[in-house]
Amino acid sequence: MPELRKDPISGRWVIISIERGKRPSDFGMRVSTKKGGFCAFCEGNEHTTPPEILAIRPDKSKRDTPGWTLRVVSNKFPALNIEGQLNRVGEGIFDKMNGVGAHEIIIECPDHNLTLSTMPVKSVEDALCVFYDRITDLKKDSRLKYVLVFKNEGDDAGASLEHSHSQLIALPIVPHLVQEEIEHAKQYYNYKERCIFCDIIRQETEKGTRVISENEDFIALAPFAPRSPFETLILPKNHKSSFIPDGRFNLLAQILQKTLRQIDKVLNMPPYNMMIHTSPFENETNDYYHWHIEIIPKLTKIAGFEWGSGFYINPTPPEEAAKFMREVEI
Amino acid sequence: MPELRKDPISGRWVIISIERGKRPSDFGMRVSTKKGGFCAFCEGNEHTTPPEILAIRPDKSKRDTPGWTLRVVSNKFPALNIEGQLNRVGEGIFDKMNGVGAHEIIIECPDHNLTLSTMPVKSVEDALCVFYDRITDLKKDSRLKYVLVFKNEGDDAGASLEHSHSQLIALPIVPHLVQEEIEHAKQYYNYKERCIFCDIIRQETEKGTRVISENEDFIALAPFAPRSPFETLILPKNHKSSFIPDGRFNLLAQILQKTLRQIDKVLNMPPYNMMIHTSPFENETNDYYHWHIEIIPKLTKIAGFEWGSGFYINPTPPEEAAKFMREVEI
Repeated sequence: MPELRKDPISGRWVIISIERGKRPSDFGMRVSTKKGGFCAFCEGNEHTTPPEILAIRPDKSKRDTPGWTLRVVSNKFPALNIEGQLNRVGEGIFDKMNGVGAHEIIIECPDHNLTLSTMPVKSVEDALCVFYDRITDLKKDSRLKYVLVFKNEGDDAGASLEHSHSQLIALPIVPHLVQEEIEHAKQYYNYKERCIFCDIIRQETEKGTRVISENEDFIALAPFAPRSPFETLILPKNHKSSFIPDGRFNLLAQILQKTLRQIDKVLNMPPYNMMIHTSPFENETNDYYHWHIEIIPKLTKIAGFEWGSGFYINPTPPEEAAKFMREVEI
Repeated sequence: MPELRKDPISGRWVIISIERGKRPSDFGMRVSTKKGGFCAFCEGNEHTTPPEILAIRPDKSKRDTPGWTLRVVSNKFPALNIEGQLNRVGEGIFDKMNGVGAHEIIIECPDHNLTLSTMPVKSVEDALCVFYDRITDLKKDSRLKYVLVFKNEGDDAGASLEHSHSQLIALPIVPHLVQEEIEHAKQYYNYKERCIFCDIIRQETEKGTRVISENEDFIALAPFAPRSPFETLILPKNHKSSFIPDGRFNLLAQILQKTLRQIDKVLNMPPYNMMIHTSPFENETNDYYHWHIEIIPKLTKIAGFEWGSGFYINPTPPEEAAKFMREVEI
């Protein structure tokens, strides 16, 4: 069982792999993604992954066989385990609990060579709907408080397998960064009685310089203070606290794929990380928090200054990044 | 003039390079560290760096000429500028100010081939004393609130030059992560009337499993909840809120060099980041915060989960890391 430990000084939680601890010689032996090698996520290799949790099978084919267009499986090397009790305990001054949670893989498309930016837009929409389905299912587990959906694209962004996939980790605590966003959004709401995200969308739409694109329901923005060059936010234009489709995930799929194509074209297919931030289970519907997608192309290195300060140095102003994104032909 | 911008949702500040913005084609053209190529930090090339701020010259040689054993210069491409006023202003909902601050380089030793772990221990001690001298000097500038001293060793840790050097960035705001540590330490102090760091040192010394080494004045620990495998803390054993030598920096130099040698030996000279955390200028002497050095070997990648949650997944328990460090022969 992995262990969740809290650092009492920073307030940060970490997941420590207790049994299968990496020894010093394990580092540096990076398993590189081999072009054309065996891929557990390709059709025909279903038996090499943990059993299917869910799949989209238009031909009604059997579980764990070919015929799917999207497939969800448990992570073979999960960061957290679904079995067991939390057992919050102290170790003197320190706090810890069992690493209870879920860690799942969403293979968005059977084709090994496609990515979120090149697969059929229907596959992107299916993936978004499945994220929602899995969140809804995991919410029933009273030990869990939050589901983080994320994607690592490319080796330098932390993807250990080449075949495009998203991941979700369900956690027994609301993560630090989400909690921080919620607290700032609440402070703003208490002061102004308006959602800060709604106000940002209003201001950015008026000004225009940091808007990348929009459609009827969604807007893509370069944030005012991005951590990284070409960081991009996608938000629903109307207030919505939680990631719920409302039958319009086709519009979300469209703007997400468009944004990723712009990033691919402007930056020559960079590695990137994508994350969905939504309200925690215990307060899914509220007036102060507004769900959104964050996309961070991996272009700069996190070094001592960032580790020590929590400050980021960004060499590209977001106004310029947005202009490049708007003007590129895709 | 760079710009400091605050993200109203996360509360995080970022430094945006406004004039010299990186265009998309600038990424990926990484200047690699050329073994044996020209080095601006080597003796004889003093005229290729910005003018000397301070140097140790046992032979009383002239400024910006050979003969030094340690040299401090401004960063040629500073993240912040020393001239100008802060001019805090709003941009609608957003906050920003001019990027006023200092960014200096401390070249600890003229020998291109030495690192903090291999240079004479006297050079390490000199560097620590010079960090203190520079902090003391920058404190006189009323626009500045904090100095972060840090070091990036190795390309993967963000070092753009091979010749060993430390850096300092003086900031007009107390950085987010330091503020967070201070707030948690204050909460603990309010509750217990004891310094949390002193309590941690007491508990760890009793238990022993996470102690790496100690001498008369200092202790090196694997923290209970490390972000990264083999993360190490060095702290003064007796309560001290700010990084002040008290004539015992020889003992700090010894334990720091020993720790870095252990890391080099156990992990085969990994890239690493090192940071000094100390109390901010405005409250240098206090009972709740305890200055310390953090060392993070660069062994894992920051991916979507970490970016989205602020959680870290650490595959090596600190008890094992401490054991490897204690047992290695150096």
